[in-house]
Amino acid sequence: MALIVQKYGGTSVADLERIRAVCDRVAATVAQGHRVVVVLSAMSGETDRLVALGQKLSARPSPREMDLLLSSGERITVALLAIALDAAGIRARALTGRQAGIYTDTAHTKARIERIETATLTRLLDEGGVPVVAGFQGIVEEGGDSRVSTLGRGGSDTTAVALAAALNADVCEIYTDVDGIYTADPRIVSDARKIQRISFDEILELANLGAKVLHVRSVELAKKFNVPVHVRSSFSEAEGSWVVQGDAAMEQVVVSGIAYSQKEARVTVRGIPDRPGIAAQLFGALATAGVAVDMIVQSVGAAGHASISFTIPETDVQQANDTVAGLKEEMAIAAIEVDPAIAKVSIVGLGMQSHTGVAAKMFETLRAEGINILMISTSEIRISCIIARDQMATAVRALHTAFGLAVAPALVGR
Amino acid sequence: MALIVQKYGGTSVADLERIRAVCDRVAATVAQGHRVVVVLSAMSGETDRLVALGQKLSARPSPREMDLLLSSGERITVALLAIALDAAGIRARALTGRQAGIYTDTAHTKARIERIETATLTRLLDEGGVPVVAGFQGIVEEGGDSRVSTLGRGGSDTTAVALAAALNADVCEIYTDVDGIYTADPRIVSDARKIQRISFDEILELANLGAKVLHVRSVELAKKFNVPVHVRSSFSEAEGSWVVQGDAAMEQVVVSGIAYSQKEARVTVRGIPDRPGIAAQLFGALATAGVAVDMIVQSVGAAGHASISFTIPETDVQQANDTVAGLKEEMAIAAIEVDPAIAKVSIVGLGMQSHTGVAAKMFETLRAEGINILMISTSEIRISCIIARDQMATAVRALHTAFGLAVAPALVGR
Repeated sequence: MALIVQKYGGTSVADLERIRAVCDRVAATVAQGHRVVVVLSAMSGETDRLVALGQKLSARPSPREMDLLLSSGERITVALLAIALDAAGIRARALTGRQAGIYTDTAHTKARIERIETATLTRLLDEGGVPVVAGFQGIVEEGGDSRVSTLGRGGSDTTAVALAAALNADVCEIYTDVDGIYTADPRIVSDARKIQRISFDEILELANLGAKVLHVRSVELAKKFNVPVHVRSSFSEAEGSWVVQGDAAMEQVVVSGIAYSQKEARVTVRGIPDRPGIAAQLFGALATAGVAVDMIVQSVGAAGHASISFTIPETDVQQANDTVAGLKEEMAIAAIEVDPAIAKVSIVGLGMQSHTGVAAKMFETLRAEGINILMISTSEIRISCIIARDQMATAVRALHTAFGLAVAPALVGR
Repeated sequence: MALIVQKYGGTSVADLERIRAVCDRVAATVAQGHRVVVVLSAMSGETDRLVALGQKLSARPSPREMDLLLSSGERITVALLAIALDAAGIRARALTGRQAGIYTDTAHTKARIERIETATLTRLLDEGGVPVVAGFQGIVEEGGDSRVSTLGRGGSDTTAVALAAALNADVCEIYTDVDGIYTADPRIVSDARKIQRISFDEILELANLGAKVLHVRSVELAKKFNVPVHVRSSFSEAEGSWVVQGDAAMEQVVVSGIAYSQKEARVTVRGIPDRPGIAAQLFGALATAGVAVDMIVQSVGAAGHASISFTIPETDVQQANDTVAGLKEEMAIAAIEVDPAIAKVSIVGLGMQSHTGVAAKMFETLRAEGINILMISTSEIRISCIIARDQMATAVRALHTAFGLAVAPALVGR
């Protein structure tokens, strides 16, 4: 008998038929003798719909009001699943983030979980019940006030892993509309292959880079608390991909997967006098404004003037632009350019740590396809290149072939 | 400078365009120097949609989970209006029932407000802000637990009047899609006339009888705390109908309005041994089951057997049927019949207290149309008849003409 946290994403609760299917799966897990905590997203498309409504009413909707708006979607799905489970004779109880004891910081629309008070959850579990928890939301207490907060996109994964960690669950199952994690996006690479087992570090890089299966913060949490995560499809019974601590066997594979992201933009700030502290000033202001900067390239041009390029999420373009524009006089900035037509293509693998020539092979593969590299960044287990967005698919396919990912590695498996 | 509570119903917040119109009206009221508290319903159709989802998953969805489900609609509209007001430069703040300090009893899906803690509301008003409160919902505290509750259909009116009472507001404006209260339903009676001024008692009878403009509990509250209510259209600037304390001038009008209801069913329990206590036993059980019984007629048939007919809301038919069926052996009930094809037609007027022959005129009017009266009930200011549902429109038109309602009374006006 295990304690299992099951998280179902938006497509898994998209309509009543899908909710009934989730109900059946939860009931089957309970029938096997396991204790289950369910975490749900909003119906697919609902959060986007709500965001669009808010944005149509205001160019800069208050994050606090947006959180109230966005948190409604999960309330609907958890209530519906609890009703379905009740009807199936399973003692279920829908819980909002508040009721599940999920406390966050005050960063509305992208809050971080600070603590989880598990008293209600453990009481329900001890009574033989199935808590059905609204993902993506928590509460924030400030000045005697208590408001709903949301964890940002993919926040339901974070809720699920955080609950699994807090409850010391045996596994956190992430149910989605794909049957696991692939070596590359199967919509782009026809011979992409399902990965059976991958390390937290690798999936962290993949998630960071826009592979949409798992939210990056959830993987960070899973790694920190060593929560085994099983990513699988709610549409089938097939085994999915396990995300676990890295081990030696995994390192035999040089590159585990190819990721891409098309949701970033490149901002270039030109003609800043090249003096110490300009980067600190610029990125300090962006950090204060809550803009998440990814890659940074600084180059010194003619006459002691520098230019700085950096990438940010597309959604932060307005905020970044305003922030930098606010510094224009103070920093003597000559020009600000925004290029939204970029993509980031990355190769990720634990084995890169012990292999050489991986970067050279990546650059050569892109060159052979006539693809210009605009920016480069690396970590111990990842190399990323910013390229023109219209060359993204070509790049991913070429890299998938170049690193032999279509062939299942002999040493990986369970 | 007045303190005004403005409540906007579902059709007034049905889409972004309508929400912008509400935003404009609130802004105009603020610009006139008034302090404003806004109460909103869910977008029209949303609550029905959510109820249908819950009912498709379970024949008897848990009221607690239904409340979580149903309370999501108002969270969306209040967040959206607060965002729109913010964008218009009005300092607004969306509040859930919890945040507005609305505490209810534990009767989920039809909870009653027990108290309102106005600290947050008054603080916001004192700061020059506009609180935008989710109608229809509150919270219930039980056993260390705190859950959302809903007030039942039309509960947003109740929220608005309760807040107006708690804040000692000058007026509670109820914005809807009709421009006031009519002498009869204009869809049925072509020469129905807008009432300029009507008493709490009269509107209470009309609301009870299915006139849909104001929720009955909101009128009870308005009467109790003497909150003037102004029912008006959010689609025009025209003056609506004022609901106020009754006065002598009003009593010159014998009948103020004709109401009807088609949302009830008649249950007949036949062949009960006619002994003392049978009514107490039957209606005690129905009350325990939460079935709201309206009219009751008891008749003694042959051989000391009684039969009891009573009317209940259509939505309670299943519950009533189960409850009575559960008493079948114990009470030796011979048969239970349910007739859903009934309608209730009523005439209402403060002036009936001081006029005679009103009932006789009503019965004669129905007889002249060949309409059979199945049940009768009366109050000091109302006479209601249960008739076949397919004769309802004929009855309402005939009564409207018979009591001269198309002609504006000389003494009523403001």
